Amino acid sequence: MPENGWTKAILWPASAMKQSKLFTKTSKQAPSEETSFNARALIQAGFINKEMAGIYDFLPLGLRVLEKIIAIIREEMNKIGAQEVLLTALQNPELWKKTNRWDDAVYDVWFKTKLKNDTELGLATTHEEPLTNLLKKHISSYKDLPKCVYQFQTKFRNEARAKSGLMRLREFIMKDAYSFHADEKGLDEYYEKAKVAYANIFKRLGLGEKTYMTFASGGTFSKYSHEFQTLTGAGEDTIYICEKCHVAINREIIEDVKHACTECGNKDLKEEKAVEVGNIFKLKTKYSKPLGLSFMNMSGQPNDVVMGCYGIGPQRVMGTIVEVLHDDKGIIWPEAIAPFKVHLVSLNKDEEAEKIYNDLVQAGIEVLYDDRDLTAGEKFADSDLIGLPYRIIVSEKSIKGGGVEIKKRSEAKGSIVKEKDILETIK
Amino acid sequence: MPENGWTKAILWPASAMKQSKLFTKTSKQAPSEETSFNARALIQAGFINKEMAGIYDFLPLGLRVLEKIIAIIREEMNKIGAQEVLLTALQNPELWKKTNRWDDAVYDVWFKTKLKNDTELGLATTHEEPLTNLLKKHISSYKDLPKCVYQFQTKFRNEARAKSGLMRLREFIMKDAYSFHADEKGLDEYYEKAKVAYANIFKRLGLGEKTYMTFASGGTFSKYSHEFQTLTGAGEDTIYICEKCHVAINREIIEDVKHACTECGNKDLKEEKAVEVGNIFKLKTKYSKPLGLSFMNMSGQPNDVVMGCYGIGPQRVMGTIVEVLHDDKGIIWPEAIAPFKVHLVSLNKDEEAEKIYNDLVQAGIEVLYDDRDLTAGEKFADSDLIGLPYRIIVSEKSIKGGGVEIKKRSEAKGSIVKEKDILETIK
Repeated sequence: MPENGWTKAILWPASAMKQSKLFTKTSKQAPSEETSFNARALIQAGFINKEMAGIYDFLPLGLRVLEKIIAIIREEMNKIGAQEVLLTALQNPELWKKTNRWDDAVYDVWFKTKLKNDTELGLATTHEEPLTNLLKKHISSYKDLPKCVYQFQTKFRNEARAKSGLMRLREFIMKDAYSFHADEKGLDEYYEKAKVAYANIFKRLGLGEKTYMTFASGGTFSKYSHEFQTLTGAGEDTIYICEKCHVAINREIIEDVKHACTECGNKDLKEEKAVEVGNIFKLKTKYSKPLGLSFMNMSGQPNDVVMGCYGIGPQRVMGTIVEVLHDDKGIIWPEAIAPFKVHLVSLNKDEEAEKIYNDLVQAGIEVLYDDRDLTAGEKFADSDLIGLPYRIIVSEKSIKGGGVEIKKRSEAKGSIVKEKDILETIK
Repeated sequence: MPENGWTKAILWPASAMKQSKLFTKTSKQAPSEETSFNARALIQAGFINKEMAGIYDFLPLGLRVLEKIIAIIREEMNKIGAQEVLLTALQNPELWKKTNRWDDAVYDVWFKTKLKNDTELGLATTHEEPLTNLLKKHISSYKDLPKCVYQFQTKFRNEARAKSGLMRLREFIMKDAYSFHADEKGLDEYYEKAKVAYANIFKRLGLGEKTYMTFASGGTFSKYSHEFQTLTGAGEDTIYICEKCHVAINREIIEDVKHACTECGNKDLKEEKAVEVGNIFKLKTKYSKPLGLSFMNMSGQPNDVVMGCYGIGPQRVMGTIVEVLHDDKGIIWPEAIAPFKVHLVSLNKDEEAEKIYNDLVQAGIEVLYDDRDLTAGEKFADSDLIGLPYRIIVSEKSIKGGGVEIKKRSEAKGSIVKEKDILETIK
């Protein structure tokens, strides 16, 4: 029974669509100005659109993937009792001055703007300051602790370079969570729960095996922070992985740990390129102290609240999945986040295909139905590029063979399946 | 069967929660610096938090209301074949210069910022320009039309005054939809569908009777635009309503229409204060022409695409509902958008209440369970303030009476109901 959160989260609306109605089209060519594979593929397939460097729109197929990633993260955060909010992008400088993060010389990723009366405002890069300040209104006693609060909110970072597609954006949604505890023991316990939640998230997203919990610098407040790093040549980070423990060490601390696994002491570490898809951090009293977030303990004494923070960027996750799961023909989406489960392709057999489309919809299967007036070659090329998990082909040949041809995107060959066995085959 | 959109949308995750775990607390006093009722009540009840004037955070209860409003709008937009996207807040000035909307002297609600290389950027106030530009990549032939594209996206408007709580914000989510047609006949047909969708939306949101489709200025391109105005003394607009047709005329054109209903000629119009909760507008070629969005018609001739636009601000809707549906004790949420359906209140009968809580959760009822250690008076005051549709009280008295006391928030008196009849009573 639910004690400390929502009972269940749900995925993005189930749906089906005819491709002739979808407003986006694939392009014959990948955009020449993009250097990252993820941006090239996602633009060519019509998932995203580039407004400016590091600034991308999400089109229907891309938004569906993004929202499914968000739904999985939401569900796992709810499971560990975190409560969802939505804070603002416009930021009051006064709070950031208290923690010395307003000055561009100290914290150099701000976009700043002004009210009409010339008052300066910032655009949110993160939310430690406003959320800590907000909790001052709701936490006064040890009885109010622990708590965890999270959001999916748009951040803005004035990155000098933004050339990695969805992996380094100037505007992006961040799932940022902040936990609040009476003492370090409480933080430590919750931090372990968050590690499990993160492992579940990356597993469900199809990145479990390639994602390593990675020891990184803890700054001045903690021994380590923990990054979740996914192996890909497209990553900007270098990590050293311990295959025995399935953990890694970030290069930034590899000297400090004497080139040994922090878990088992193993010195046989493997250097890999990786991208940071999430991180968790023990903030302790770094923000509660300057912002004045305290509580009365059981003895009636005031104490600073002890905090942790937990981030994941859903768009970076999406870009990473494309980098990791593709072949030379296009994207290979994991089923959990594919925009649709099935790509139904009619080769001049629209009447038969329409019937199957309706049956799939009735059965609650998410399906994109390619009912367009194009050649088989064009349809297959688009289907490979878009990368839905299952392709169902309805053709003269498949009908003669006794049904439809079903092929997994991840496999080279398909097979003929009787119409009545379709649901069984793709389930 | 779905031809042109998603099959179904769903509401925000079903949930249940114990109030002792909810991180927000109600306040004894409404905030003295707020002048609008909606901001005062929503802050006092813990739905929202003020960051700065016109800039509010959404806390768990408030976010649930907001997401339910969004889900209803999404469902109705999907029903008329609109396809959802998510465009960016950061805006490229080049597009806005083409339509003469970059200059602050012409369009005076911009927040502007800069990249590190000093390139100026805008923060989205609306999206005609980038969406029209985006569609140039996907529309080339009459076969690509009609289309409708929409989003729920954060807008920023540098309002000189922001004193009406959620009814005039500097940062807010907007549902903005844009439709694209081969000719004005196509636009006219879709525009009528949008009117029906909007009527459905406001009806489902509990504002149907108080909301009037209102004829307003069509600018230089159309005879009229249509606003959806909800009657409330807190509104900034003045409209003249025709009770016969359930439509209204905005004061800005009342002289032009000679003080008569545009539908039936009725001159017996009633002046009312109202707030604009949505609007729809025939843009025709106002943006497609300067931005170069054209298509080849059936004769192979290039034509400008004909456009319409359709806006609703979910936060303004939320503020309006609070203005319209409240009493002196607090908010009275319509069931469709209440954060929870039931407020279960235990008066020192936690064991019995816990069992009912579990039963309600099993039955899929959204319930907030007040398990806190407070007096009956404090719990009832909070319950009235928060305003969930049903209150179920478990007390010594109710148990002696044979069950629980169930009271609707909108009614003065409750009645004793047997435990086995609870579900029947609240369904």
